[in-house]
Amino acid sequence: MNEKDLVLGNVLQAVMMLEKSHSFAYLIPEVRTNLVYALPNAKSKEDVAGIEGRITVVNGYPKASGFPKFGASSHMARFIIEIMKVNPEMRAGINFIYNNDFGKWLKEYCEKNNLLMGCVDRSKEPEERKRKEGDSMVWKVAEVIRSVNGRVPDIAYETGAVGKESVSVLIGKSAVEIVERVGSLGEDYVKNR
Amino acid sequence: MNEKDLVLGNVLQAVMMLEKSHSFAYLIPEVRTNLVYALPNAKSKEDVAGIEGRITVVNGYPKASGFPKFGASSHMARFIIEIMKVNPEMRAGINFIYNNDFGKWLKEYCEKNNLLMGCVDRSKEPEERKRKEGDSMVWKVAEVIRSVNGRVPDIAYETGAVGKESVSVLIGKSAVEIVERVGSLGEDYVKNR
Amino acid sequence: MNEKDLVLGNVLQAVMMLEKSHSFAYLIPEVRTNLVYALPNAKSKEDVAGIEGRITVVNGYPKASGFPKFGASSHMARFIIEIMKVNPEMRAGINFIYNNDFGKWLKEYCEKNNLLMGCVDRSKEPEERKRKEGDSMVWKVAEVIRSVNGRVPDIAYETGAVGKESVSVLIGKSAVEIVERVGSLGEDYVKNR
Amino acid sequence: MNEKDLVLGNVLQAVMMLEKSHSFAYLIPEVRTNLVYALPNAKSKEDVAGIEGRITVVNGYPKASGFPKFGASSHMARFIIEIMKVNPEMRAGINFIYNNDFGKWLKEYCEKNNLLMGCVDRSKEPEERKRKEGDSMVWKVAEVIRSVNGRVPDIAYETGAVGKESVSVLIGKSAVEIVERVGSLGEDYVKNR
Repeated sequence: MNEKDLVLGNVLQAVMMLEKSHSFAYLIPEVRTNLVYALPNAKSKEDVAGIEGRITVVNGYPKASGFPKFGASSHMARFIIEIMKVNPEMRAGINFIYNNDFGKWLKEYCEKNNLLMGCVDRSKEPEERKRKEGDSMVWKVAEVIRSVNGRVPDIAYETGAVGKESVSVLIGKSAVEIVERVGSLGEDYVKNR
Repeated sequence: MNEKDLVLGNVLQAVMMLEKSHSFAYLIPEVRTNLVYALPNAKSKEDVAGIEGRITVVNGYPKASGFPKFGASSHMARFIIEIMKVNPEMRAGINFIYNNDFGKWLKEYCEKNNLLMGCVDRSKEPEERKRKEGDSMVWKVAEVIRSVNGRVPDIAYETGAVGKESVSVLIGKSAVEIVERVGSLGEDYVKNR
Repeated sequence: MNEKDLVLGNVLQAVMMLEKSHSFAYLIPEVRTNLVYALPNAKSKEDVAGIEGRITVVNGYPKASGFPKFGASSHMARFIIEIMKVNPEMRAGINFIYNNDFGKWLKEYCEKNNLLMGCVDRSKEPEERKRKEGDSMVWKVAEVIRSVNGRVPDIAYETGAVGKESVSVLIGKSAVEIVERVGSLGEDYVKNR
Repeated sequence: MNEKDLVLGNVLQAVMMLEKSHSFAYLIPEVRTNLVYALPNAKSKEDVAGIEGRITVVNGYPKASGFPKFGASSHMARFIIEIMKVNPEMRAGINFIYNNDFGKWLKEYCEKNNLLMGCVDRSKEPEERKRKEGDSMVWKVAEVIRSVNGRVPDIAYETGAVGKESVSVLIGKSAVEIVERVGSLGEDYVKNR
């Protein structure tokens, strides 16, 4: 119970910070942003807190559609559970836009700030993987990890499937930590793009 | 002023109906749903009312992220403005999922209910169109209209681009009208899929 | 139907204006503010639109707890229905704080701006009236009207019952009109109090 | 930091439980409900988490107007800080209605469930106390404690001031605990009133 309070309270603090970040509003993708933070040893999406209804843009600012809640995310929850198999400390993630122009800026930003960047080219996904959503995620995260020689990157991005928007994900140790980092990234982008 | 009140009040009534439709929650795409209703003779997105922050899913029900507002939609607003060039009475639209399985069901539903269905294959979009978002929409709606011999269909769907989720759109005369129709469609889908 | 759209759309525009008024946040009473706008010839609270859950303060700004909706107000709806028996054009009202200090400022503001101010002393309410909520309102509004010689005042305030917070109400022709007026009042108060 | 996460996460879990309690909607007073949970050794309202904008009623259910947040409550925060001077473990409180009819029911409920009930008659408040809000609270809580011979009661209620709504408060060790208890109380009331 206490562990759940800790995780939910941390996500809540993170989301209140994010709602004040005008610049992050520019980084919210069409599929909207979610922010996840997993319990230690999380095994299923019920062990991962996310924002119910995701985070959208209202009046030029990010806005959580609902409360932080366990089980509120499916896609991002499965992503972070795969990441935790490689490094159990990396329990938090937040997704944002990816496209060619932004990608160029993002690469420079990562170099400047010494951030490790991994990627996966979804056009290379084997057909038999695509049929099962869970299988697809296992393959995707394995590719990301492989792209940076077995480590967990700070930022992962994916490219290229039909019907799927490309997105980036920033990975870290807590919800508050990743929002601080993605907030800095957003401010830098709005200033320098 | 009065015309704006009429449009906003109608969208508000529509969105309150939609928020009670548990089955429509199954039809909300990754990019989330928007619901637009244009002023007569709408020329720009500022003449079209939509839901700020779009409509997401919270506790299993559709939930508007913000209030109905003029200028709140960009993509769906441009869509309905193109439609109004063909039939100025068709001032309202709402988007929902499209994929192969749902598409089969949807075709049968439209036949059974005597609804006209148009489509556009986005993989055929000319390269030079894609570069400008506005141009892309002009081409898309022209293709949809062409697919049903110059009429405005009841439902349009698109397929196939890299990085773009496929969606369907139901088109009609007012926000309340299209929500009533898409609500019936949702109930039928949940019962019979 | 159209008349309902007009009223709801007008309340929606009004509430979006109010949510931007930082100074009105200082005028929201403990019982919270409601904003009502009645259909012509309104007879019951179902004919009066109000804000569901009332208007509270979040991050220093007024915030509607829910959507504008018919039947959402009980107290303020009965108030405006009684007012409409005297002048059917006065279909909108919004309540805000009243106390001795604010009352002094409010009197000066009304004189300066040529606003008619009515009042009712609730300590004079006959015991048999208090037992039925509806009866109480009939008596209250009659007293307010009597206090300004049979007219409908621009602003009415009440004083003094055990267990009941004193409030003021600004009365007018539409939701947008009263929010414009109460917004000016709020700005003047914050500047000059 | 961790202590703050724990408190916020606990309030969040509590408020999500409360939002599902249809019967508690009947117990929300005109001034709306707030729910507070203090950090250990809380000294000022910034050390106490509450619900921003309080908890109102939307569609027949309790609804938090904003997020749980430190500093979001003033009145209830000062109340719980005074209580903690007597018993530092009693760090959480939630307010709800009080009136003569409800009071009779509440007394029976407390007897049946072995709950200690304290009270303060605000008509006995010394004039000089009323002038300073802080002083008023010190006096009020001292009276409540005196009414139950120096202990902290499970439920405290106040009666009788001009311009002030009477309310009850349930006091306990955590936000989740008091919501569980006030939820049972609400269900019993709705069944048996």
